[in-house]
Amino acid sequence: MQKILFTNEVRQAITSLIEEMRPASVHIVTDSNVARAVLPLLSLPYPVITVMPGDEHKDLSSLSLIWDGLIKGGATRRSVVINIGGGVVTDMGGFAAATFKRGLRFINVPTTLLSAVDAAVGGKTGINFGGLKNEVGAFAPADAVIISTVLFSTLPSVELLSGYAEMLKHGYLSSEETCRRLLNYNILDSRPDTLLPLLEESVRVKERIVVEDPCEKGLRRALNLGHTAGHAFESLALRCHKPVPHGHAVAWGMLVEMILSHMTEGYPSRELHILAGYLKDNGYGTPAFSCDDYPALIEFMRHDKKNDTPGEINFTLLSRPGLPLIDRTASDADIRTALDIFRDMTS
Amino acid sequence: MQKILFTNEVRQAITSLIEEMRPASVHIVTDSNVARAVLPLLSLPYPVITVMPGDEHKDLSSLSLIWDGLIKGGATRRSVVINIGGGVVTDMGGFAAATFKRGLRFINVPTTLLSAVDAAVGGKTGINFGGLKNEVGAFAPADAVIISTVLFSTLPSVELLSGYAEMLKHGYLSSEETCRRLLNYNILDSRPDTLLPLLEESVRVKERIVVEDPCEKGLRRALNLGHTAGHAFESLALRCHKPVPHGHAVAWGMLVEMILSHMTEGYPSRELHILAGYLKDNGYGTPAFSCDDYPALIEFMRHDKKNDTPGEINFTLLSRPGLPLIDRTASDADIRTALDIFRDMTS
Repeated sequence: MQKILFTNEVRQAITSLIEEMRPASVHIVTDSNVARAVLPLLSLPYPVITVMPGDEHKDLSSLSLIWDGLIKGGATRRSVVINIGGGVVTDMGGFAAATFKRGLRFINVPTTLLSAVDAAVGGKTGINFGGLKNEVGAFAPADAVIISTVLFSTLPSVELLSGYAEMLKHGYLSSEETCRRLLNYNILDSRPDTLLPLLEESVRVKERIVVEDPCEKGLRRALNLGHTAGHAFESLALRCHKPVPHGHAVAWGMLVEMILSHMTEGYPSRELHILAGYLKDNGYGTPAFSCDDYPALIEFMRHDKKNDTPGEINFTLLSRPGLPLIDRTASDADIRTALDIFRDMTS
Repeated sequence: MQKILFTNEVRQAITSLIEEMRPASVHIVTDSNVARAVLPLLSLPYPVITVMPGDEHKDLSSLSLIWDGLIKGGATRRSVVINIGGGVVTDMGGFAAATFKRGLRFINVPTTLLSAVDAAVGGKTGINFGGLKNEVGAFAPADAVIISTVLFSTLPSVELLSGYAEMLKHGYLSSEETCRRLLNYNILDSRPDTLLPLLEESVRVKERIVVEDPCEKGLRRALNLGHTAGHAFESLALRCHKPVPHGHAVAWGMLVEMILSHMTEGYPSRELHILAGYLKDNGYGTPAFSCDDYPALIEFMRHDKKNDTPGEINFTLLSRPGLPLIDRTASDADIRTALDIFRDMTS
């Protein structure tokens, strides 16, 4: 099982892990932003492989650059890779490590709230390919993940909100009580020491689900809550050259999917209003789209990787907070109605 | 565990496997030689992704071509890939399948004796990268392997000899009795029905070892018998632009390593002469090298992927036929002596 350490003593945690693992050599993978902003704080004595930042560089050419760096650095099968960065770095560095000489051990050190709560934990690694997100990759858990809220101190608000949306998602998958607690916490006014235990609780939700179903055959699909509609919002925004943060899209997607849950699974309408109010009050904004965009949004949903049956659109819905329902489908007409209601509620 | 079917009814075996697996779609991966020579015999009703033949095309660009073909063919996570070809196709098609959408199921149908006895079984997949063989890949077992000797009927003698060397290796790892049987069989005068049971026995040796140690932490290293010296012969030949068949290099490598086994582990000298005589009588030829090439050969051995400890050269040796010794090392002086004796014995 993946070892997850929650600590704000990052350097010390890395040092003791490396002592335990006794690797032949250690190689850091990061991007140029993190190399400038975070690495100097950690002053680790290992060679660094630096990729360009941003999802547009999560590709075969950056992956080759990492493999090349490992060859030049003399990595053997007993070496260890430390991925320090956001989701792009942990996904891509994890995939590079998992495939170099058919698999090196690796440690993830997420530097964004989003990657701490999502990408860095759970073993999904990969790159974009052929214009499709995460089209190529592997299920390969990190040997250890070090989660530290001190690393988030320089993150802009929009990044904190984006990450916090995935924490909310874990709340909705966990229990009504956890949801309430998260909805009452102000992430924009958070401190590392109060955020760390809340983040730990959230990551443990994901961890429990992943342990049950590492390769996403069933239960793990619950983690897709908000993501079918959310990915469609992301793709539409990208097509209009106005990208939106992943977590914001997931937050909007959760609201759409809760509306569908209300329409088809008896999810309480009160909950819809609570989430809509929260998103409005906390600066999540609203996605830019009109009913002219419905066909495009539905097409994006239909081409989502999560659909196993061609033509059908797969959703994770909820019957109540804490009670997810996986592998639900919805008709185009129901999705249109849900998008209508969503626009009413967020206008 | 990997399902291995030994049958000369290939088309029927594929058809029943696909019926069992109920995939969303089926995609064949092959190379242009096999597409011309073998696919027409099987007349399978599935779309075909064709790569260029040869180890020089076992690279990132062919791998991308396979991923592209899967996207264009509409493959989903529930699709199945059938790799039909030699080791290049099964290694690369297996790696493409194992990483497309983080893993599709795949079937290997080896069309050469070498890939049937070696590459297609055991879950090692990958490509060459940065000038290094199989530098990038994954441990990903095929869901099924279909082994059929009828597919070898058009193979040239040199290909049969090359594959048979890996069968001999399995004999040396298994028992003295199996060795004797293999040394008395004439592969160049073989028939599909007499070869199939012998091949099955050989593949089962590998299967037993791989089940014990799928990721090559220990016992599986026994399968590297002949490969430390063998890879060095292959690399030297490649550098001189006179490539040699893999199996021939492994056969020569086995003799070198048996000489080392005799020098350091009491391996009987009688066995050295039996193998040397066999290689001479059966057309394996001898590698072209002089004592001026010793430093280059030793350097190639030192940079082998199998070495975990920088600087040391790792060998699998034998104390007797059937009794392998893994993780042995040898000094440069011992290797030079072994190469001297090898040249005497094969001249």
